[in-house]
Amino acid sequence: MVNHALDQLKLDKKPVNLYAPVSYILSLGGKRLRPVLTLAACDLFDGNLQNCINAALGIEVFHNFTLLHDDIMDEADKRRGHHTVHVKWNPNIAILSGDTMFALSYRLVHSKSTGDNFLEVLNTFTQTAIEVCEGQQYDMDFETMDQVTIPEYLEMIRLKTAVLLGCSLKIGALSANASVSQANVLYDFGINIGLAFQLKDDYLDAFGDFEKFGKEIGGDIASNKKTYLYLKCLELADASDRKTLLDLSSSATQADSKIAEVLRLFDKYSVREQVISVMEMYFNKAVDTMQSLEVSPQKKHELISYAKWLYKRDH
Amino acid sequence: MVNHALDQLKLDKKPVNLYAPVSYILSLGGKRLRPVLTLAACDLFDGNLQNCINAALGIEVFHNFTLLHDDIMDEADKRRGHHTVHVKWNPNIAILSGDTMFALSYRLVHSKSTGDNFLEVLNTFTQTAIEVCEGQQYDMDFETMDQVTIPEYLEMIRLKTAVLLGCSLKIGALSANASVSQANVLYDFGINIGLAFQLKDDYLDAFGDFEKFGKEIGGDIASNKKTYLYLKCLELADASDRKTLLDLSSSATQADSKIAEVLRLFDKYSVREQVISVMEMYFNKAVDTMQSLEVSPQKKHELISYAKWLYKRDH
Repeated sequence: MVNHALDQLKLDKKPVNLYAPVSYILSLGGKRLRPVLTLAACDLFDGNLQNCINAALGIEVFHNFTLLHDDIMDEADKRRGHHTVHVKWNPNIAILSGDTMFALSYRLVHSKSTGDNFLEVLNTFTQTAIEVCEGQQYDMDFETMDQVTIPEYLEMIRLKTAVLLGCSLKIGALSANASVSQANVLYDFGINIGLAFQLKDDYLDAFGDFEKFGKEIGGDIASNKKTYLYLKCLELADASDRKTLLDLSSSATQADSKIAEVLRLFDKYSVREQVISVMEMYFNKAVDTMQSLEVSPQKKHELISYAKWLYKRDH
Repeated sequence: MVNHALDQLKLDKKPVNLYAPVSYILSLGGKRLRPVLTLAACDLFDGNLQNCINAALGIEVFHNFTLLHDDIMDEADKRRGHHTVHVKWNPNIAILSGDTMFALSYRLVHSKSTGDNFLEVLNTFTQTAIEVCEGQQYDMDFETMDQVTIPEYLEMIRLKTAVLLGCSLKIGALSANASVSQANVLYDFGINIGLAFQLKDDYLDAFGDFEKFGKEIGGDIASNKKTYLYLKCLELADASDRKTLLDLSSSATQADSKIAEVLRLFDKYSVREQVISVMEMYFNKAVDTMQSLEVSPQKKHELISYAKWLYKRDH
């Protein structure tokens, strides 16, 4: 339903250099996780999916706008196996078509504006957009900071990743005329699955199966990213290992020997078990949050199963 | 009132690298033309200015966001005599704080959401934001195009500059509960003064008084910008002068001799008189548009006088 509706967006407009990148990035696919969550949350309250499909698309367009601008900032050449917009076109076009996508996302979010909850939808979307920017700034700040604490890291991934999942679910619920407090339960569910998903990403980078994961293991280690694994290891390590880890993570090399040495330290301090434990905690917290919601047990089960299926993925 | 309200925005937030550039660019001043037009349009319909001050600020924040991103794209070092954000900080911070300003502008625009015209306000703002991006893309496209027609140029400045003036006025009128058709009269007024203002900018670059204009005369000529003056001269010139003009405008030199030679051609083909005639036409069309509006003649006079004062400026 999401892909069909995305295909219906009229994006073959002029100027071509503005709209072609928008069509391009939206055509690269992906799980469409956020709009699916919006539709699922709407369905949970027996809402008419037609009342939230545009908002769902708006959230997907917003998400792709953030990917587009993030790719410029990260100087990433590839996105889902294809050239990024700033490589295929140029950085100026990438900046401006991103800006246009942000405006287009608002057009979609406020196009169905009849419900009682419309203002809450709008406030939620804007608040989330601001927080996603804050998260991205923290992520950039962390690259050059010597000391990042685990609470700071968790707050960064909450802002950069989790709030948009919470927002997707909340807007779906609001579109089905759920009460604000019911919608906030779904928001909290989204925050907690978002944290679990992001920690799972960190986990897979170090402990994933290369065949299934589809990218090189240890990419985060090679590029000295301050992931949960790294910060946890730093917290647990003795003075000598701590120095080794700090030295390794301040070296520009991407050598396999660096990755192997860091993985050895992760193993020594049971970082794998630590991250599994904390991501399980967030996932279970998400499921617990849903218990209080008085909706069809069957639909509740479907939403939780979908989240579990995503969470259990090993790629 | 605008500057006071801007000072009240709480922008000393974290992350500092995200919000400090927002405060910085908003502190650089400027005429605050757009929010003043919003307030004036609200007053024209005897509206309560408190009902539109936030929307007025939202439009000013949006305008400054477009300046911030345009400065990255144009590689401009200075803005109002100060370093641009991407120079003072870096391009990544400039991209992201610009994105944040776009979201903050929406927060301001939809914060007073009680009026009957609220949806029209929101649709007008979003449509305008999209069109401003389209205008900027056309402006960038024109840099590398051999042939740009005068209608294409006028459409570009309509999108890049005029629609936001129209939007500022329309949203002010809507906030005072004017009818959509009354608000559209003000929108048309804004489009026409916007075109007149932009043509005046083109004019001042070539024919301004250096002492008053405050920047070098001929900057557009030096950088080969396809302004109205240039396109008009190309249209009127004979084959030989046309070739001279095309050769000059494809040369990378910024020499005074190039500027002098282009100004000589402008003089030969009475380009000065041509641009005066067309900008007067737009300004008069703006004033005529206002005749149909049934509001206090005194207030109508004040708004037109303000526009005239801006239009007559020689700097």
